[in-house]
Amino acid sequence: MYKKINEKDLEYLRKITSQDRVFSKDEIESDYTHDELGTVKAIPEVHVKVINKEEVIEIMKYAHKEVIPVTVRGAGTGLVGACVPVSGGILLDLSKMTQFIELDKENLTLTVEPGVLLLDIYEYVEKEGLFYAPDPGEKTATIGGNIACNAGGMRAVKYGVTRDWVRGLEVVLANGDLIHLGGKVVKNSTGYDLKDLIIGSEGTLAIVVSATLKLIPKPKRLTSLLVPFETLEQAIEVAPKLMVDHVIPTGLEIFEKTSIKSSEEFLGKKIPNGNYEAYLLLSYDGSNDQALEEDIEIASKLCVEKYGAIDAFLVDTEERKGNIWTVRGGFLEAIKASTTEMDECDVVLPRSNILEFLNYTKEVSKNLKMRIPYFGHIGDGNLHIYLCKDDIEQKKYDELKQKGFDLLYKKAYELGGLVSGEHGIGYAKREYLEKMTEKPHLELMKSIKKVFDPKGILNPNKVV
Amino acid sequence: MYKKINEKDLEYLRKITSQDRVFSKDEIESDYTHDELGTVKAIPEVHVKVINKEEVIEIMKYAHKEVIPVTVRGAGTGLVGACVPVSGGILLDLSKMTQFIELDKENLTLTVEPGVLLLDIYEYVEKEGLFYAPDPGEKTATIGGNIACNAGGMRAVKYGVTRDWVRGLEVVLANGDLIHLGGKVVKNSTGYDLKDLIIGSEGTLAIVVSATLKLIPKPKRLTSLLVPFETLEQAIEVAPKLMVDHVIPTGLEIFEKTSIKSSEEFLGKKIPNGNYEAYLLLSYDGSNDQALEEDIEIASKLCVEKYGAIDAFLVDTEERKGNIWTVRGGFLEAIKASTTEMDECDVVLPRSNILEFLNYTKEVSKNLKMRIPYFGHIGDGNLHIYLCKDDIEQKKYDELKQKGFDLLYKKAYELGGLVSGEHGIGYAKREYLEKMTEKPHLELMKSIKKVFDPKGILNPNKVV
Repeated sequence: MYKKINEKDLEYLRKITSQDRVFSKDEIESDYTHDELGTVKAIPEVHVKVINKEEVIEIMKYAHKEVIPVTVRGAGTGLVGACVPVSGGILLDLSKMTQFIELDKENLTLTVEPGVLLLDIYEYVEKEGLFYAPDPGEKTATIGGNIACNAGGMRAVKYGVTRDWVRGLEVVLANGDLIHLGGKVVKNSTGYDLKDLIIGSEGTLAIVVSATLKLIPKPKRLTSLLVPFETLEQAIEVAPKLMVDHVIPTGLEIFEKTSIKSSEEFLGKKIPNGNYEAYLLLSYDGSNDQALEEDIEIASKLCVEKYGAIDAFLVDTEERKGNIWTVRGGFLEAIKASTTEMDECDVVLPRSNILEFLNYTKEVSKNLKMRIPYFGHIGDGNLHIYLCKDDIEQKKYDELKQKGFDLLYKKAYELGGLVSGEHGIGYAKREYLEKMTEKPHLELMKSIKKVFDPKGILNPNKVV
Repeated sequence: MYKKINEKDLEYLRKITSQDRVFSKDEIESDYTHDELGTVKAIPEVHVKVINKEEVIEIMKYAHKEVIPVTVRGAGTGLVGACVPVSGGILLDLSKMTQFIELDKENLTLTVEPGVLLLDIYEYVEKEGLFYAPDPGEKTATIGGNIACNAGGMRAVKYGVTRDWVRGLEVVLANGDLIHLGGKVVKNSTGYDLKDLIIGSEGTLAIVVSATLKLIPKPKRLTSLLVPFETLEQAIEVAPKLMVDHVIPTGLEIFEKTSIKSSEEFLGKKIPNGNYEAYLLLSYDGSNDQALEEDIEIASKLCVEKYGAIDAFLVDTEERKGNIWTVRGGFLEAIKASTTEMDECDVVLPRSNILEFLNYTKEVSKNLKMRIPYFGHIGDGNLHIYLCKDDIEQKKYDELKQKGFDLLYKKAYELGGLVSGEHGIGYAKREYLEKMTEKPHLELMKSIKKVFDPKGILNPNKVV
């Protein structure tokens, strides 16, 4: 169906880009054959590093004419294989498109190319006293990648997800047409919302070549409360209750002993007051000291007096903050380092149903005799659950993993959840999107894919 | 192309709903032949008041089989003719679907049927100490209507628009299939974002039969500052500057003398301190008194000392608040009452370009010799501009109106704006969506319409 790339194609790609940015065969580095999780692997026929939208347009025109698959890649920090060129063809690498196009202080927007890293955005806007709120764990991801999977992160309870911070997109369509969606405007009721359709579509509908992000003034202070509980169940139960009490933090994370210990060992760092069974980490941000203190006081009091927390430690020094967030940041790496292979489940649930789901996860772990560690953004019901191979034999592991995912996703849907909170569907979770989605709903998605990409060249075999 | 409704169809519709909720011919009240603005008029072949989603499903199955157009109507408060059955067929009236299905205090969501009025939602959640933030001028609109046009309102600067407050939708497709989009979850990266595609699609893609709304704890206080300026230009210029100074209000409205006077006369009410040329009304909300006072103090100081405002009046009593918001609420009615006919332009612009656009509007008004009053949500760049017929002869008015719209939309696009900020496209603005949208972008919208509604029965001749 797809055309295989030959020497003439390579020559053309070199002509419209540059000699030294087109790689084929042995020149392709192994880093570009997988993503962060590494379970999905494929070698592209050609790896092209582009530096501007004009190159993207020319490549898409050519790929469309010749029917060559194009898989877009940013920093490759995804976990579902979305950037892996499973159908071969062109790996379109946007990581060199790193221009900061415009900071507009009157409209509070920042326009950037897709290859800009999240950590560089933070630094750039914070110097100006401004703030881009989405806070995914992986700061070396590109903004293009964040838009592709609608990344969430640790401030979603208060600030929402990437989608909520994208005002406008410039995208290249499958045939090379360039269109503009949204803009710097705050409101928009001008026809169908294609901007939000592109966000989260993981490179299967169009290629983002610039994004206009919403900014707000940077909150002057961020304070956290580390709240230990005697049992994990207690900690989990408190999260939705805090909402009923109208104590809404910026972020609300859960830490349990096993995750903490393994991250501490992995990093050689320790969190303060770190010997309890489970913790909630509540963070609050704002610009008024008194208001912030009031929030913290109410939250501490509620946790200890009403919900039986052992204590509530103010995380007020830079050192304490640093240690805690470093250990939190090490959860994934530590789990990865602890096992021979793993796959992940990024379910999202109504937060009131998390305890039931996690209890079920434990049951599954016990029944399958498989280690299933997890951590999660408990404030927004998004859990990251890891099915670990450890020393299970490969064939057996593949079977157990399949069974485990089947059980977990089924339970998630029974509890009002969905397949993915923030990592996307990519290649790895296609089967579960297909299984769990109502048929007419799925058919609509497939038809929309055809509308945008009739020849099926954009990131084939991903999402739907 | 479409089947005309006959006695047998009416009989069937009565059978699947009820004798007393199906109206045809002389039974159709004239209220149901137009919307609030009234410029688009059409009589449906049949007007059906449905009371639940099962009826909607049955009607759609039938309409799909028989190829009968279906136009959904809520409270009819729209301004672009979206709910007017311009192709005849069934007027599907959802205004009796008024169930509050579930208030979920743990997940902070409210699930309602589409016919529930905005004012009833406010009352319902505020009794529970909760808050639904979107604040469109028309409180007697239904939530279904608000979702259909992605209504904005006066708190969009801080809180965003309807889209930002819809977590999940239950929708009936053109063929009667029922699907669920989103849910109670905070994050979602599970396939293409059809929820946001439906929001703002004005009944052309699917019919919303229930919506799960996001809620937050109700801010304890709302305070406003009424800030008079010597000239309108001065007032307009200050809005984007306040953003640069990081003084971000909940809402930021502009009042100018003519609008105030005509609303005051229309209502027989006066705003306090109401004799200046132009005003900004800055509102702030929050739960911490000190933080709120600080915001207000900084804003007052900046306006008066840095930006040359004449004064800054605290709108602190219920009476003052009531008067100001009543007069603000009367702007549209007063303009409507002041002229024989009018049509409106709901452009949205980057807020830094509003002054240039309004100066241009004045020029157009002068050149066309047509009165063009306006008001707007200056904080989010959304303007409501009215082209008034007054005593211009009809044919001449139609010509001038066309010319006026052409000029205004063209200018808006030059300045990074869009056709509609919050009223939608409906029937009245189709031409401008078509003219102003890049061709491949428009083609995508049309193809998406076909995916959802291959027979073209859902609100035909609207949007695209």
